[in-house]
Amino acid sequence: MSNPSLLILPGDGIGPEVMAEVRKIITWFGDNRGLQFDVSEDLVGGAAYDAHGAPLSDETMAKAQEADAVLLGAVGGPKYDDLDFSLKPERGLLRLRKEMDLYSNLRPAQCFDALADFSSLKKDIVAGLDIMIVRELTSGVYFGEPRGIFEEGNERVGINTQRYTESEIERAARSAFELAMRRGKKVCSMEKANVMESGILWREVVTRVHADYPEVELSHMYADNGAMQLVRAPKQFDVILTDNLFGDILSDCAAMLTGSLGMLPSASLGAPMANGRPKALYEPVHGSAPDIAGEGKANPIACILSFAMALRYSFDNGAEADRLEAAIEKVLADGARTGDLLGEEGVTPLSTSEMGDTIVAAL
Amino acid sequence: MSNPSLLILPGDGIGPEVMAEVRKIITWFGDNRGLQFDVSEDLVGGAAYDAHGAPLSDETMAKAQEADAVLLGAVGGPKYDDLDFSLKPERGLLRLRKEMDLYSNLRPAQCFDALADFSSLKKDIVAGLDIMIVRELTSGVYFGEPRGIFEEGNERVGINTQRYTESEIERAARSAFELAMRRGKKVCSMEKANVMESGILWREVVTRVHADYPEVELSHMYADNGAMQLVRAPKQFDVILTDNLFGDILSDCAAMLTGSLGMLPSASLGAPMANGRPKALYEPVHGSAPDIAGEGKANPIACILSFAMALRYSFDNGAEADRLEAAIEKVLADGARTGDLLGEEGVTPLSTSEMGDTIVAAL
Ligand SMILES: CC(C)[C@H](C(=O)O)[C@@H](O)C(=O)O
Ligand SMILES: CC(C)[C@H](C(=O)O)[C@@H](O)C(=O)O
Repeated sequence: MSNPSLLILPGDGIGPEVMAEVRKIITWFGDNRGLQFDVSEDLVGGAAYDAHGAPLSDETMAKAQEADAVLLGAVGGPKYDDLDFSLKPERGLLRLRKEMDLYSNLRPAQCFDALADFSSLKKDIVAGLDIMIVRELTSGVYFGEPRGIFEEGNERVGINTQRYTESEIERAARSAFELAMRRGKKVCSMEKANVMESGILWREVVTRVHADYPEVELSHMYADNGAMQLVRAPKQFDVILTDNLFGDILSDCAAMLTGSLGMLPSASLGAPMANGRPKALYEPVHGSAPDIAGEGKANPIACILSFAMALRYSFDNGAEADRLEAAIEKVLADGARTGDLLGEEGVTPLSTSEMGDTIVAAL
Repeated sequence: MSNPSLLILPGDGIGPEVMAEVRKIITWFGDNRGLQFDVSEDLVGGAAYDAHGAPLSDETMAKAQEADAVLLGAVGGPKYDDLDFSLKPERGLLRLRKEMDLYSNLRPAQCFDALADFSSLKKDIVAGLDIMIVRELTSGVYFGEPRGIFEEGNERVGINTQRYTESEIERAARSAFELAMRRGKKVCSMEKANVMESGILWREVVTRVHADYPEVELSHMYADNGAMQLVRAPKQFDVILTDNLFGDILSDCAAMLTGSLGMLPSASLGAPMANGRPKALYEPVHGSAPDIAGEGKANPIACILSFAMALRYSFDNGAEADRLEAAIEKVLADGARTGDLLGEEGVTPLSTSEMGDTIVAAL
């Protein structure tokens, strides 16, 4: 039997730097835990545009479809600001999500004990925080047609379409309920059913799917209230289920509550492939951070934790994922910090690569 | 010359209670400062539905069009959850916004010194916070067509349309730049131009309007990053300009940073009427709070501060608005608190009506 395949797409900005540290971790698991992967690497985002004139080539897209898991660093940067919409780095990422049909985006917002002080929120509000946001990722206003900028009378109009079918809502909801069964058994679904008909359908379908998960407690909240409640008392939540656009905003809001964006991974999952593994892409929640790219300042932990999610969700190896997560908690408890996790106290931060080495040592 | 007219629409839940306190304030300004208003009162939301079978009658709509300013309490409640979309309490409010063409919704997020401890954020992050959010209020996904739930193949699809014309963006932008000129001279415009064409047009038009306000510093931010930055370091902002849906979520997020939602007013302004005053509706940011309605627990300050905004924006009387705001700051500094502004310390809170009386006394 051949080894499972990993496609690595470092992308732009700090993507390549943090991915280099993930490589060290992958090597460690190969050498010490017998987890062998066939690793290949390719381009996405601005890096792909620079090489091929498109933010994702058809060849890379085909490789991603074949891979057992894709690991992505980050895309985007000011260099590409003036590119046509269809050529922007983000389009490469959106093409992956859409063509791999990765409908369920899992974004944990977890506050690490050692870092609770780093949040802009009071410690008692965020200490021990552990939310899982399930964001629908292949539909909604991100992909709905018609879209574009059109002439209308003597002016232009910008149009996008929010669009959800019952089956799109259903599969995202199912994935949230399944997750909740393995966690705190609570799902809070967020939309604007008081203003948008797509939200009414969302609420109706989520309520219907809930019938299959009677052990899970379901609540509904308007997305604006959701944003408030995240700031006011985030620990009230277990799993939050929401659509593509609300999920984009609410998950970033939730991520920032933890005070350590450089710590947060994500998994984007689709339907099972022939081998039973879901189509899957793993990426840190943080962006390409062009301001610090190439300086060895980036925190590689979010990207390393994304690999831990791959172990858990693609390779059904929760035990090794736990091992990796525990190593990270240990180095943090021991005081290892990259620059983003330090205040102004004048402590010398670890470089990206030193942090990677420290985690390998802790393993 | 006849007195300016005020139409009061208390609405649902705690709306009538907080509006009763605003009445006391209006009376005080009439008796002591020679500010006479012709005040009339009518129904909106669930209250209007109960009386007329519609969340806003045509007669009330006509009165609102004629009024020099409309003061609204709050709409909505669980009692109306199962009503048809077009009959829900919210539709009354949305009809007022749309037909009065109130395109510029001003939502200050201000942290009152006396209440900085009440925020879930650390005191140094929010003390002195003073942001003005300008939310476009008459277009976007709230009103775009097509919309609805349709059959498609063997399932249903929920559709809403995000839609902005150049002129809609331009007038909202102009209102943000005008405000910035009277404040900190900074505007940050938020959209998702990396994903939505309507965001691209938004950014382009805002940039063009900016040419007329060279003294104002303009920046652009993706709305997801905006949510993060609001949580991370809200004091970096002066005026935030954004669309209807992002504004709904981001303004609630910003409101919650202050820790005192019961304190935050809003103004929704349209084009000037024949008498030079803008069409205007003033309302607290908080909702109808059905859980505490009728118990005398609601904080009337947000609604009273909405009247202060009316003095400032409709009646060009910044001096009297300042007087009212100063009285409120004073009573807070003196320790006056409704239940929402207290921790668990066992202090007896003021009732809604006691808070109103305390403010009148301070005037
Ligand atoms: C980069 C961008 C296209 C993307 C999104 O909007 O989904 C990002 O913000 C995210 O949340 O993954
Ligand atoms: C009540 C509701 C229709 C409204 C909105 O979504 O605009 C409210 O949330 C607001 O922000 O004023």
